Amino acid sequence: MSNEGSYVEQDEFNRDTNYIEDRITADGGDGWKVEPDRYRLVVARACPWANRAIIVRRLLGLEDVLSMGICGPTHDKRSWTFDLDPDGLDPVLKIPRIQDAYLARFPDYPRGITVPAVVEVSSGKVVTNDYPQMTLDFSTEWTQYHRDGAPNLYPDALRSEIDEVAELVFKDVNNGVYRCGFAGSQEAYDKAYDQLFSRLDWLEERLSRQRFLVGDTITEADVRLFTTLARFDAVYHGHFKANRNKLIEMPALWGYARDLFQTPGFGDTTDFVQIKQHYYIVHKDINPTQIVPKGPDLSNWLTPHRREQLGGRPFGDGTPPPPPKPDEVVDPAHSA
Amino acid sequence: MSNEGSYVEQDEFNRDTNYIEDRITADGGDGWKVEPDRYRLVVARACPWANRAIIVRRLLGLEDVLSMGICGPTHDKRSWTFDLDPDGLDPVLKIPRIQDAYLARFPDYPRGITVPAVVEVSSGKVVTNDYPQMTLDFSTEWTQYHRDGAPNLYPDALRSEIDEVAELVFKDVNNGVYRCGFAGSQEAYDKAYDQLFSRLDWLEERLSRQRFLVGDTITEADVRLFTTLARFDAVYHGHFKANRNKLIEMPALWGYARDLFQTPGFGDTTDFVQIKQHYYIVHKDINPTQIVPKGPDLSNWLTPHRREQLGGRPFGDGTPPPPPKPDEVVDPAHSA
Repeated sequence: MSNEGSYVEQDEFNRDTNYIEDRITADGGDGWKVEPDRYRLVVARACPWANRAIIVRRLLGLEDVLSMGICGPTHDKRSWTFDLDPDGLDPVLKIPRIQDAYLARFPDYPRGITVPAVVEVSSGKVVTNDYPQMTLDFSTEWTQYHRDGAPNLYPDALRSEIDEVAELVFKDVNNGVYRCGFAGSQEAYDKAYDQLFSRLDWLEERLSRQRFLVGDTITEADVRLFTTLARFDAVYHGHFKANRNKLIEMPALWGYARDLFQTPGFGDTTDFVQIKQHYYIVHKDINPTQIVPKGPDLSNWLTPHRREQLGGRPFGDGTPPPPPKPDEVVDPAHSA
Repeated sequence: MSNEGSYVEQDEFNRDTNYIEDRITADGGDGWKVEPDRYRLVVARACPWANRAIIVRRLLGLEDVLSMGICGPTHDKRSWTFDLDPDGLDPVLKIPRIQDAYLARFPDYPRGITVPAVVEVSSGKVVTNDYPQMTLDFSTEWTQYHRDGAPNLYPDALRSEIDEVAELVFKDVNNGVYRCGFAGSQEAYDKAYDQLFSRLDWLEERLSRQRFLVGDTITEADVRLFTTLARFDAVYHGHFKANRNKLIEMPALWGYARDLFQTPGFGDTTDFVQIKQHYYIVHKDINPTQIVPKGPDLSNWLTPHRREQLGGRPFGDGTPPPPPKPDEVVDPAHSA
């Protein structure tokens, strides 16, 4: 996401959760039918909300039907740019800024210009930036194009539990860290901090008994928690003052996070260097020097997690995805 | 110390180490003879350099001959104030700001107005703010007034080793954390960070073999390292981006720090609330919101350290100091 569509009320950070809600579906009910090569997913590796879409696309094996454009980690007030690409243009959309795709769709688009966004290649128009629906639709509407062995990340029988857990995790953790970091007063910060760590304690307890958040396989709920945990010690702990403790001080959560990180699709889509650059350079209002910390030491992400002891079948009846496509590999120097 | 007498050269933070170098000595060679009740030590509990003087005064039992004025944790451009005292006046010196004592001595005093400072009560003039010499003089010039059982913090036979270790610790650690936090460029920060953690690795190795830094008893070298370690996870890790790891991730240093913290004179002079308020509120240039983090959890300072296994005699042939005087007790809510 970011530039964070947001507003401040009583010093509290409130995320603008109004998105372009069109859906790309198997039946094309909204006018956007699932079709190979028709759309392009635009992401930034730094962004936790976009990272969800990157992970789900890879777990499901949608790479060959839904291409991916990657924005750089930093941006200005006009939001994300394709500064990592030759000449600063997305090689497929031929635009320098994702903003251009928003304006192609709505010339007066008034809200945040965010990633992830799905763009129709032929028209250059954004179809949707509704990130929570986007990954669910990858799981449930794009099934015709899933790879052999793709996991079921949103199984019918578990949907209500996944939705319930994901909602708590969103409010207190995914968005909770932003509410700590962007609090406009000591009181608003204190409240967000308490809410964040209460929820992390709850998760710690839950994950000390079971390998994954819901059921005994990886689901959408795990994807959503993972992208925040991956950024916790690297950014949120210091930059957002989410500092009761580091993630590595919570044994179950830390084991859980490493278990996922070491699973194909998770760690291999995580770019710690871009993550740190994004937050520390873009948020000049809370880090005026824009200096990016050298720490923390991240080699610990590759240490044994021993979560197999809890049982669980990461991919259920499916299989792990193959390695990333060569042009989508994270720079090894940016990984753990 | 602080407002940090400093200047910036090639983006590096350089501490102004020019102080008022008069010494208070047994023979009164500089005109300032050691005498009971003649002087007042002015400190702020937040300040690591002042904390050294508080600790040494207490270990040596100088409380009854050298009174202590305590400035509040935050200050403005005109430096530290007695805002914790009734009516905002130091009860002995009857001044609102330590600056007044500097100006009483030198009406055009051009350098940083710093604590610790020793003030002559009758004239209201600062005698010295030369903090490295100050604590050595407490040990070597005020001997007539040391309590029974006072330790020898600067024994003749170990002085050259203490000086050598203290110099490395000053450059890379005590001042090194400031060089991280106040770096004016990414390059200057990176350099300071590397220097800091190389030295901490060196200390970790040294302290895995011996209980104290020099010899087998507590010395001035330990006092000097302790006040930085006490602030490390609470402030320097996040605020100054000294974040390769927390102190608690370095087993020997963390055991060493807790050993000292749990020794009378160290932990009982440490005010974590004032420490956090000082850095996060005063340094508005690196923390514009002035929000003070709730973390980290500091109860871990009271956990067993097991450093006795390394031998050592904390007070040598001496004894620990008695509890602090009632009006000098740190607010229990501000401690670990």
